[in-house]
Amino acid sequence: MPSVPFLPFSIFLGILGVLCVGLTSFWGQHWLGGFAWDGSSKMFNWHPVLMVTGMLVLYSTAALVYRVPISWEGPKLPWKLLHAALTLAVFILVVLGLVAVFEFHNKKEIPNMYSLHSWLGLATVLLFSGQWLMGFTYFLLPWTPIWLRSFYKPIHVFFGSSILSLAVAACISGVNEKLFFRLTNQTTPYNKLPAEAWFANSLGMLILVFGLLVLWSLATPTWKRPDVDLQEIQEPLLQEAR
Amino acid sequence: MPSVPFLPFSIFLGILGVLCVGLTSFWGQHWLGGFAWDGSSKMFNWHPVLMVTGMLVLYSTAALVYRVPISWEGPKLPWKLLHAALTLAVFILVVLGLVAVFEFHNKKEIPNMYSLHSWLGLATVLLFSGQWLMGFTYFLLPWTPIWLRSFYKPIHVFFGSSILSLAVAACISGVNEKLFFRLTNQTTPYNKLPAEAWFANSLGMLILVFGLLVLWSLATPTWKRPDVDLQEIQEPLLQEAR
Repeated sequence: MPSVPFLPFSIFLGILGVLCVGLTSFWGQHWLGGFAWDGSSKMFNWHPVLMVTGMLVLYSTAALVYRVPISWEGPKLPWKLLHAALTLAVFILVVLGLVAVFEFHNKKEIPNMYSLHSWLGLATVLLFSGQWLMGFTYFLLPWTPIWLRSFYKPIHVFFGSSILSLAVAACISGVNEKLFFRLTNQTTPYNKLPAEAWFANSLGMLILVFGLLVLWSLATPTWKRPDVDLQEIQEPLLQEAR
Repeated sequence: MPSVPFLPFSIFLGILGVLCVGLTSFWGQHWLGGFAWDGSSKMFNWHPVLMVTGMLVLYSTAALVYRVPISWEGPKLPWKLLHAALTLAVFILVVLGLVAVFEFHNKKEIPNMYSLHSWLGLATVLLFSGQWLMGFTYFLLPWTPIWLRSFYKPIHVFFGSSILSLAVAACISGVNEKLFFRLTNQTTPYNKLPAEAWFANSLGMLILVFGLLVLWSLATPTWKRPDVDLQEIQEPLLQEAR
């Protein structure tokens, strides 16, 4: 695979990630009425911001931790802990993002979990939560046998990329759905592409490009941590503490 | 990675793929009013059927050709030709699928290409078309130098999986969007989850599961054609014909 150096590329990815969060926030502030935590539609507006920040940008950061060349030297444990901490932060943002939409629905008496977007989103969050728990159990707790760690590692890696793909799909279907809610029965409906539709469609495409570039970074062989070191695989959290 | 034998798994995948096409057709026949090629909404109904058949199921079949163990023996060229022919068939179905929706829009004077679903779908189709042309140029024409084939191969493989992910995301956003069109201002709206919503949401989730299992199959190392054989890589279409 063609190989640019990882660090400049990751800075570029970082800029795109900040742009994804910034543009989602701008959509919320400029078109959707701003932010509040009060069960109103302003509370809903936290939902896209928290999901894009957590499930897309911070999640990608956590996934790319092992691609930082400096992480290849010395013990792997600190990087495992960083990976676990970042993904735990993702989990917290995601839970807040879910609270934002459920509270809004409940206050407005809109049913929860009816659209395909919500089904896909929940499946993504459940897979992600399972992935976190399995990662913690298999890679950080000391009593998982080595053969089980080795067996599970490619599964964890596969689902790492897959969950990111699902998150991108969930973001896109969410933006699409929100635009139909917003722009139906408007003077300039969605199908006349008013400025908001251009803006949010472009945001959706930016999220897509960001996701693809992260998947690309994860798949690039020269950016992977060299050779699986069995000694590292079996280095669990509690052994170090003993 | 855990390794079930490929053949029984591919039969299972085949059943899921047939189910995806069958349920999409059933949706069109039972709820959306049936099929016709006349610019009416019955013409639109070909759009999901052709896209799911082409861009999801047939595309996956084409991608999995090199995972069939029998393809590992003897020359690779016949399998390359099969891969190219299947993906060309995908292209034809996709073009028909686009004609179905554009004709419907034009007849009803609905603008084309305004929703994020359509932007994502078009990006997927353009990437897929580029992938086909590049694959043909790099792997089947005789004048591409070997280093360029080797350089391009992992890119082709990466985009193979990525385009499938985009196709799944496009299907899901499309089903979601169609349900909002269909079930707004109905006695039982989308948010009350009428039978059609349950059905089409489940179809969306089935498409997701199918896509994930295909991605899994593509990523499983023991199912990959063993070792890149440079002699095979440089075996282009026209050399054999000389």
